[in-house]
Amino acid sequence: MKIVAFQGERGAYSELAALKYFGGKIQLSPSLTFSSVFAKVKDGLCDAGIAPIENSLFGSVSENYDLLAEHSLFICGEVSLQINHCLLSHTKYKLNELQKIYSHPQALGQCSNFLNKLKAQIIPVYDTAGAAKMIAENEEPFSAAIAGEPAAKAYGMNILQKQIQNNLKNYTRFLIICKDYSQKKIRNPKTSICFELKDAPGALFKALSVFALRDIDLTKIESRPIPSRTFEYRFYADMKGNLQDDKIQKALNHLKEIAVFVKELGSYESARLDGMD
Amino acid sequence: MKIVAFQGERGAYSELAALKYFGGKIQLSPSLTFSSVFAKVKDGLCDAGIAPIENSLFGSVSENYDLLAEHSLFICGEVSLQINHCLLSHTKYKLNELQKIYSHPQALGQCSNFLNKLKAQIIPVYDTAGAAKMIAENEEPFSAAIAGEPAAKAYGMNILQKQIQNNLKNYTRFLIICKDYSQKKIRNPKTSICFELKDAPGALFKALSVFALRDIDLTKIESRPIPSRTFEYRFYADMKGNLQDDKIQKALNHLKEIAVFVKELGSYESARLDGMD
Repeated sequence: MKIVAFQGERGAYSELAALKYFGGKIQLSPSLTFSSVFAKVKDGLCDAGIAPIENSLFGSVSENYDLLAEHSLFICGEVSLQINHCLLSHTKYKLNELQKIYSHPQALGQCSNFLNKLKAQIIPVYDTAGAAKMIAENEEPFSAAIAGEPAAKAYGMNILQKQIQNNLKNYTRFLIICKDYSQKKIRNPKTSICFELKDAPGALFKALSVFALRDIDLTKIESRPIPSRTFEYRFYADMKGNLQDDKIQKALNHLKEIAVFVKELGSYESARLDGMD
Repeated sequence: MKIVAFQGERGAYSELAALKYFGGKIQLSPSLTFSSVFAKVKDGLCDAGIAPIENSLFGSVSENYDLLAEHSLFICGEVSLQINHCLLSHTKYKLNELQKIYSHPQALGQCSNFLNKLKAQIIPVYDTAGAAKMIAENEEPFSAAIAGEPAAKAYGMNILQKQIQNNLKNYTRFLIICKDYSQKKIRNPKTSICFELKDAPGALFKALSVFALRDIDLTKIESRPIPSRTFEYRFYADMKGNLQDDKIQKALNHLKEIAVFVKELGSYESARLDGMD
């Protein structure tokens, strides 16, 4: 049975995403930080890890982009999960009775319109399900957590309100992280790479030309700071196609002529969005 | 006397950055959120606002990128501040006696190597100086905050350790936000824009071509999700030059042929990094 590391407590969205991707036949390993998810995979303690990489409302999870560059691990899959945030409490309260609301900063951001109407103090914590667990265990009065419905079940809490996110089209995309990468036939394949460029005018334009001139469709580009080079950036690109494809191989060889660093992060099946396409 | 809005409590890095940019002759207006900084400028309650936009170690402050696109305000200046994080406490403790360390998630991220060696629980809060103020006011035992030296002075706290950030080259770049934009002669000018593209192969490459083909040097590109268009992105670009420059005007006119939306955010003098260049 595969062991899969995820960040957060039981009932976390990452746990739900892992079950959606792998089905029920896995053993789940809750982890305090994203860094520990990557470390468990690197050290062979887990067969795979799952890590959120972006939310359609709130944007990228930049820590996980940095961890992809730091580790010699591969992306071997992705899964999208529709996020339905709920407001959970130990005791049933009216919304205007609440004094404190805890959740992960990403979840707080995704529910900002709902939260702006309340008078409660907003308290960021490391994890949505962790916030629910803390309130349930401490039986904390006049407090609520923003988390998913599975967390309500896991900790026996009341759901004060469902679907409190700003936008019902709220998706988080998770990556499956593996130690070994076996090239195989992939349906609807997607490839991820990261690269660093010389600090020169037109450098990014030249880098993107290697894909555009070969009609390779980039689906996302992300920039992250390079700590040792103040206000210079590392880029991450996702594209349609497989690393085995001749034109992607040629594009990456071309990119290596331009970039000072190129890393292939893996090819995997594109996730489908539930209720869309 | 100019009134300048900043996010955070007295002693926050934003306050320090405002004083560096404007000199001492301003009145400062502390604000709970970035959103309220922008609102105070929009509503004419403040003459200007200051907002961190990126840190050289931890990356962009995405909320402020989104606020730039949402509001009809302009960037009229920028300032870079070298960040020296300190560990502050009410009582003098040894590092291994600490049970809780509070700070803003960005500051916690910038000090992760130092924090990983301690056994204290890490608690994210909305503001570095706010964390210091809370510990000082509550006289909270066995607790410390990560904040700047000005916060230690503001709240009469002990500095347990200085310069605890992962990398001494730690800079935050702040933008000055104004309601009215007067084109003027600018030394070492920089221009910021945001734009949205059709979801088509090569769209970003074509957009960047309008700058590359005119030898305009892009210094940063940032992508942020468009909430109404799941997993599609809005782009922000910084470039060397002034909106008044003929070649930048021509490039933006060219970009408008390609993009579905282009917004000029302003031209302003590039900030210099202390101790660099």
